[in-house]
Amino acid sequence: MSKMFRVNGDRLWRRLNTMAAVGKTPNGGVCRLALTDIDKAGRDLFVEWCEAAGCSVAVDQIGNIFARRPGKNNELSPVLTGSHLDSQPTGGRFDGVYGVLAGLEVIETLNDLGIETESPLEVVVWTNEEGARFRPAMAGSGVFAGVFELHETLKISDSQGLGLGEELARIGYAGEAPATAMPIKAAIEAHIEQGPILEESGTDIGVVVGVQGVKWFMLTLTGVEVHAGPTPMELRRDPVLGAVRILEKLYGLVSLRKPWGRITFGCIETSPGVFNTVPHQVKISIDIRHPVQDELEELCLSLQTIITELTASLGLQGHLEELWDSPAVRFDPDCINAVRQAAIAQGYSVKEIVSGAGHDSVYLSRVAPTSMIFIPCEKGISHNEAENVSKEAAVNGCNVLLNAMLKLA
Amino acid sequence: MSKMFRVNGDRLWRRLNTMAAVGKTPNGGVCRLALTDIDKAGRDLFVEWCEAAGCSVAVDQIGNIFARRPGKNNELSPVLTGSHLDSQPTGGRFDGVYGVLAGLEVIETLNDLGIETESPLEVVVWTNEEGARFRPAMAGSGVFAGVFELHETLKISDSQGLGLGEELARIGYAGEAPATAMPIKAAIEAHIEQGPILEESGTDIGVVVGVQGVKWFMLTLTGVEVHAGPTPMELRRDPVLGAVRILEKLYGLVSLRKPWGRITFGCIETSPGVFNTVPHQVKISIDIRHPVQDELEELCLSLQTIITELTASLGLQGHLEELWDSPAVRFDPDCINAVRQAAIAQGYSVKEIVSGAGHDSVYLSRVAPTSMIFIPCEKGISHNEAENVSKEAAVNGCNVLLNAMLKLA
Repeated sequence: MSKMFRVNGDRLWRRLNTMAAVGKTPNGGVCRLALTDIDKAGRDLFVEWCEAAGCSVAVDQIGNIFARRPGKNNELSPVLTGSHLDSQPTGGRFDGVYGVLAGLEVIETLNDLGIETESPLEVVVWTNEEGARFRPAMAGSGVFAGVFELHETLKISDSQGLGLGEELARIGYAGEAPATAMPIKAAIEAHIEQGPILEESGTDIGVVVGVQGVKWFMLTLTGVEVHAGPTPMELRRDPVLGAVRILEKLYGLVSLRKPWGRITFGCIETSPGVFNTVPHQVKISIDIRHPVQDELEELCLSLQTIITELTASLGLQGHLEELWDSPAVRFDPDCINAVRQAAIAQGYSVKEIVSGAGHDSVYLSRVAPTSMIFIPCEKGISHNEAENVSKEAAVNGCNVLLNAMLKLA
Repeated sequence: MSKMFRVNGDRLWRRLNTMAAVGKTPNGGVCRLALTDIDKAGRDLFVEWCEAAGCSVAVDQIGNIFARRPGKNNELSPVLTGSHLDSQPTGGRFDGVYGVLAGLEVIETLNDLGIETESPLEVVVWTNEEGARFRPAMAGSGVFAGVFELHETLKISDSQGLGLGEELARIGYAGEAPATAMPIKAAIEAHIEQGPILEESGTDIGVVVGVQGVKWFMLTLTGVEVHAGPTPMELRRDPVLGAVRILEKLYGLVSLRKPWGRITFGCIETSPGVFNTVPHQVKISIDIRHPVQDELEELCLSLQTIITELTASLGLQGHLEELWDSPAVRFDPDCINAVRQAAIAQGYSVKEIVSGAGHDSVYLSRVAPTSMIFIPCEKGISHNEAENVSKEAAVNGCNVLLNAMLKLA
């Protein structure tokens, strides 16, 4: 068994706190939406730290940042780590940023210890992972992996009509490196679990063997807009009634696939949206997930049937638009093993886990051997200003990342 | 029986079409939100027509416009008619404006016929009846009737933070007349039914004997914001699930009071409102109506019980705020009779009807003997760009208004 090294936990924790101040919200969370001035400030800080650590920094055409620490043999493909710096509108201090700063801490530790790896190491910051400002999510890693087309992705607009490409240029992160995958020896992303499983089972490290499949739909239900007073209930074509009936059925559908099925209606909008008018239209976002691709496909077929049947019986028009499809992923066995062995060798308790959240590693796994490390987060709460992890958990995960990367590099 | 007179239907219809062009929407409806530049244009046009018809025009401090045709004895209290010119965001061409222009047509007809009434006549335009831009609805008539306090009402803001008082001044309709009720001999408002009853029963004229009671609530359901993927369904506190369960029960509650109970959820907002996050909060507007006040009160008690029980069982926080309370109204018997007799004398078929919609006459009835005339509207559709009435129906209603006012004045 090779020697186990440990990172500088104080430095890692200090930097997590420093970065958490960039876009800090009144309730102690973070609002660092992709390609805003605040995102730029976070990126600038990361680049400054990387350059101080002796890394060369490159930015590609979709704004992904690559900080490189040379190896003994720079002809070899790099071992990659990293995650994202953008957040949800009312997001937490660790989602994404933990993986980025854990990667930087690995490089700082190797510098401190004077260790040179055979292969070069790279820490990456992927653009617009959250999808909160620009849809789809995981845009930077998606373009890199060839899932999305660069020029189409640059044209995507936010809700204010501002283009992703224009915003990249405005904040100075429209880079020149081609936004396509170079050969990568192995990739490991450290991340908070964003769920309750590790904490509830008292496990130190989640060995992530794969990622749930996810589909996003926009469901539009159209009825007839009438005044709230004079039209008897039985003569209405009320799309809110349709929404209520359909959502109840969809919650029921997913509950049949306990504990793995998940469905979330994050965004509901009524139009015209006034008190005394039965809405003309309701739009509902649907996020549906399952770790087994076949089961996800079956769920989606049932979902379509439910919508078709209920809209017909209520005299409504239903339109279901698929906006995103991220198939279930199985990670690379060698990368999974590197994580498991590094954790066990350091005496951490481990648990195999399937990620319920999408991550840049989903797309990266299409072009590189990939796996992930999860650390417990408090009560499983994420995408929330209250998101929290212990310093110990953060350091544990970073130690595993360090030793797994050393083994792979 | 006194002699029956008839209005100039072509002039009435032409003016309805001219006014419909002010704020015309691409789908043939109207967007003339209260105190916008478009509302100002509509008001200016009305004032121009009234002055050309020899009326004196006064504007009060809440922006209500009063166009006065003198009588033989100007010491007598006036007989009032009128309605509102503001519309829903995607409203129709007749809601409100019909009652205003029918009133003006009564004056024009009397001028044409050289008829002088004993009492003066006034045509009123009430400010912000719809409540679409500034809540509460019926603000102008409410202040006039002493239901709302003038200075508080002037401070109300729209969703952009613009104040009602500032907007009144900006468009030049912050008048000097006191916004308090003067003595009124009688008041009759003509309006489209906004429901399907007259059309379905083939009735020409609705003799409105009262108005449904209405209450408005804002229901806020608060849960726990978590990432859409990792948290198993059974560990969530999802306010959307709460909304679905509560709304289903409330629809059921109101359906027990067929055909008179009504409930409408016009505005639903999720926060933060992104695809991959279980919302922290859902806000739902509730508009609940019944023509019998005791039954409305019972419905509201049951509504509160349902919300309390379901939020507790789902681990959510529920907050129900009452925003508006308009008790059920019975109109004045003499005014009701004047309408009924005028309609029957002209050979129109009549039906007693309870208005499902709130109207300025609800507040006006607190300070003056009041009733309303309803005319059929196509398929009962209102608060919709497709709102429509036949020229014949419009003329019939105006003939009834003319003769009822002549009798009362």
